[in-house]
Amino acid sequence: MDRITNATVGAGMIRFALRRSHNIHWQALDVTREARAAAKGQKPAVVWFTGLSGSGKSTIANLVEKRLHAEGRHAYILDGDNVRHGLNRDLGFTEADRVENIRRVAEVARLMAHAGLIVLVSFISPFRAERRMAREMMPDGEFIEVFVDTALEEVEARDPKGLYAKARRGELKNFTGIDSPYESPENADIHVRTAMLSPEEACDLIVSSLRETGRLSA
Amino acid sequence: MDRITNATVGAGMIRFALRRSHNIHWQALDVTREARAAAKGQKPAVVWFTGLSGSGKSTIANLVEKRLHAEGRHAYILDGDNVRHGLNRDLGFTEADRVENIRRVAEVARLMAHAGLIVLVSFISPFRAERRMAREMMPDGEFIEVFVDTALEEVEARDPKGLYAKARRGELKNFTGIDSPYESPENADIHVRTAMLSPEEACDLIVSSLRETGRLSA
Repeated sequence: MDRITNATVGAGMIRFALRRSHNIHWQALDVTREARAAAKGQKPAVVWFTGLSGSGKSTIANLVEKRLHAEGRHAYILDGDNVRHGLNRDLGFTEADRVENIRRVAEVARLMAHAGLIVLVSFISPFRAERRMAREMMPDGEFIEVFVDTALEEVEARDPKGLYAKARRGELKNFTGIDSPYESPENADIHVRTAMLSPEEACDLIVSSLRETGRLSA
Repeated sequence: MDRITNATVGAGMIRFALRRSHNIHWQALDVTREARAAAKGQKPAVVWFTGLSGSGKSTIANLVEKRLHAEGRHAYILDGDNVRHGLNRDLGFTEADRVENIRRVAEVARLMAHAGLIVLVSFISPFRAERRMAREMMPDGEFIEVFVDTALEEVEARDPKGLYAKARRGELKNFTGIDSPYESPENADIHVRTAMLSPEEACDLIVSSLRETGRLSA
């Protein structure tokens, strides 16, 4: 891109001094989280997908993102792909690191909701305490927990990446569902039983819920 | 908010099964960073404000945010206020922590740019190496360094929060400009000399530069 030198700073001064009166109206109001979100016909929300590895969290989150985008809304997915190799690449899989991983993800989700987005967070997040921590960081009503509920036998039978087989052989330690617990949500806002709902139907249900609870304007 | 029970999951299934054919068109395309940004008439960018404490970084960044919002664009400010007490609250002011502070801020800026936003980052960020690290994390042309250039004598004379006075008395350690260096940018994309430009003029210059370099559509 063009570098702007001292010379163009000078040009900027002259060019814009003539237009100063244009600036008055937009200086009146601070830009709030509500204003940023309203510009997209939505209210901020953090939709938190929890469930076993392979349960379908990312598939459903992707469908929701596409649907919202097609409607002119603005959503964004936070998941292992874009966080583990960047923001959280200094973290391993000890218990302390797993908690810090979720803490940072929740903090970023909070910033993105503050920016006006509907944030779709897709992490196994197996522990109730960490999901509660995330919920408590958000304003009331903005945290929507989606339990993507697939039986262990089902995800283990599919095992597209061979992770469950590895964990059974002891090659992966602390693998959720095998040698580390998954604490099922007791009061998820949305309970998706994948044995009963296709990913498309789960997406319909979630978008419908966002609409009914006022996160999306008509 | 309403909890969605098993019963409403059932209702979701029935209600939406009838509309399945509506779903086809929006499943065709993945939502890319370009698509998210284009919906707001912009291309993603990270505008990185660097300068001494009290130089006017936040004042100018706020004006830029308001201006872009008034135009229907979508910008968001990352600064000490929303990062230090949340995402980075585990970090202190040792050199290692200051580098990690900037690394995480740059990672969050990268995610927000990926979400389609114009991200306004306002941190002293006194070291060339850390600003280079941030630049190298972004795609070519998306990192715009803004040097908010105010003389130390000037910011020290204003000193609205009394921080410079405290640092001079030795009550604040590693304070940039006093007992820790500020490494001026040698090739900032935009050089704002606050002795010559008002905050409004600096805002005009930055928005004009975003327009001229194609970050904002007509």
